[in-house]
Amino acid sequence: MGLKNLIAPQDKIFFELFEEQATTICKAADLLATIFADYTDLEEKYRHMKEIEHQGDAITHRAYDELNRTFITPFEPEEISRLVTSLDDVIDNIDDVAHMLLVYEVKKTDEYMIEFAKCLKQSGEEIKTGIEGLRTLKDTETIKGCSIELNRLENVADEILSRALSDLFKSTDPVEIIKLKDIYEHLEIATDKCEDISNVFSAILIRHT
Amino acid sequence: MGLKNLIAPQDKIFFELFEEQATTICKAADLLATIFADYTDLEEKYRHMKEIEHQGDAITHRAYDELNRTFITPFEPEEISRLVTSLDDVIDNIDDVAHMLLVYEVKKTDEYMIEFAKCLKQSGEEIKTGIEGLRTLKDTETIKGCSIELNRLENVADEILSRALSDLFKSTDPVEIIKLKDIYEHLEIATDKCEDISNVFSAILIRHT
Amino acid sequence: MGLKNLIAPQDKIFFELFEEQATTICKAADLLATIFADYTDLEEKYRHMKEIEHQGDAITHRAYDELNRTFITPFEPEEISRLVTSLDDVIDNIDDVAHMLLVYEVKKTDEYMIEFAKCLKQSGEEIKTGIEGLRTLKDTETIKGCSIELNRLENVADEILSRALSDLFKSTDPVEIIKLKDIYEHLEIATDKCEDISNVFSAILIRHT
Repeated sequence: MGLKNLIAPQDKIFFELFEEQATTICKAADLLATIFADYTDLEEKYRHMKEIEHQGDAITHRAYDELNRTFITPFEPEEISRLVTSLDDVIDNIDDVAHMLLVYEVKKTDEYMIEFAKCLKQSGEEIKTGIEGLRTLKDTETIKGCSIELNRLENVADEILSRALSDLFKSTDPVEIIKLKDIYEHLEIATDKCEDISNVFSAILIRHT
Repeated sequence: MGLKNLIAPQDKIFFELFEEQATTICKAADLLATIFADYTDLEEKYRHMKEIEHQGDAITHRAYDELNRTFITPFEPEEISRLVTSLDDVIDNIDDVAHMLLVYEVKKTDEYMIEFAKCLKQSGEEIKTGIEGLRTLKDTETIKGCSIELNRLENVADEILSRALSDLFKSTDPVEIIKLKDIYEHLEIATDKCEDISNVFSAILIRHT
Repeated sequence: MGLKNLIAPQDKIFFELFEEQATTICKAADLLATIFADYTDLEEKYRHMKEIEHQGDAITHRAYDELNRTFITPFEPEEISRLVTSLDDVIDNIDDVAHMLLVYEVKKTDEYMIEFAKCLKQSGEEIKTGIEGLRTLKDTETIKGCSIELNRLENVADEILSRALSDLFKSTDPVEIIKLKDIYEHLEIATDKCEDISNVFSAILIRHT
């Protein structure tokens, strides 16, 4: 296999993005080392970390966009398989949470669980609309909207998780912490899986419109 | 890339299954919201959740079967790669558990660990038989049997985990809970990885018989 | 689909390796059952488990090498996609750790965190060097060196995690254990993701040199 295939002109952009991303990793690792070594102004330093993480996300999205633009392929088995798996994962995680309530003998639900469930209900509706849209691909704006909304809802879940954990660690009951932490984290993972579905939506849209 | 490739006649079935699955997600999310909002009759509601989860599984299996039927391909690099990874993951998880016993300075083993280990030993034998069968593909019934048995053993492990955790949370020693929960969960993950292997067996069988 | 494609001569080696690996799984599961049933000489038995795990790793590496040798393909979309994902995962895990410091209101850092961060900084530099090397593929020895070094650093992180957890479980504060265990484990996962990158490096090197 010749090198030509490896560094074809269309691949150059990937190398530029990979190098940018490697630099971003170095920046993040540097900052983490700084945080650990000089453990002051944590909030300020974390704001900086978040900026670096957003830069990383932007590079990742550019790379995926390029990937979808460069390698034009039909609706592929891999894509179908990824959709099958993600849809199943969402259900499994929701089921896991319900199962934990029983196994952990959780005595009452709380505001955070209710917020997560609301977030998952909305995500379910967006998934339904997006999948229906994929069938005809006539109204790509709607699918794009679902994709954006699923991403937004995943961020909402992240934020619920932060608040839920902050609050949870005010408890002095470690067993309670173990149980609820597990439940909150699985609720958040369910929305991560919804975001996987949104990524498949985006990939299909980029290639077919 | 034209739309024809996207919604080719053979793809229609996937869209039907995806739509069914999106509806299943909505049902599961709805029920979770109901559980959180009206936290009564948990056992009854969980039975309903489990039914929804089984419906989801059935749709997932139908989708994979269709996928394997529609895209007929030889024994592929991806399949080999998936088998390599899953086999390695089983070993890694078993090793992790043994390592945890040391790091956590676990003083004694228990019935659940012994049950998990028995389950993993049986899974190991099924994997061995299945792989030997794949070589000639003469006795597909045997491979099918291994696949079914690996799935069954994964369900057995799920059930051991439920009992083990129920029992564990009767403990009042949170550190004990943290350690054993980690060990039990890794034992269960090891059987999940065995089930991944069984899924590769099924995929090969569907396409080659 | 004929059987010829399945058991082509070049596939034989995979079946031999898969059978060896299935046997390794059985050995590991047997030993785990023995450990649980006769809970004595744990250190000695764990040394044996580690040997089995190393045998498994060696088989896995041989299988991947064969896979890369047998199916010669150019720098593929899947490979690019895997690189994009792993690079992003490293950043996300570093960000998660920084976020946990805030959410868990961790009052001070420790030696282990500083060691992990040093390990991640070095990994970041190796990734940068490796990616730059991939662009021209002129100095394959350097890329090979990065790949080896990233593997080594992942082992270093494993070892830091063992020491950190051993030490942590001397604490009598379960909430402290929950928080720091989560942080240490995410630091270790970040280096696992660096190793994924090193695996992509190796795959490309085997095929292009």
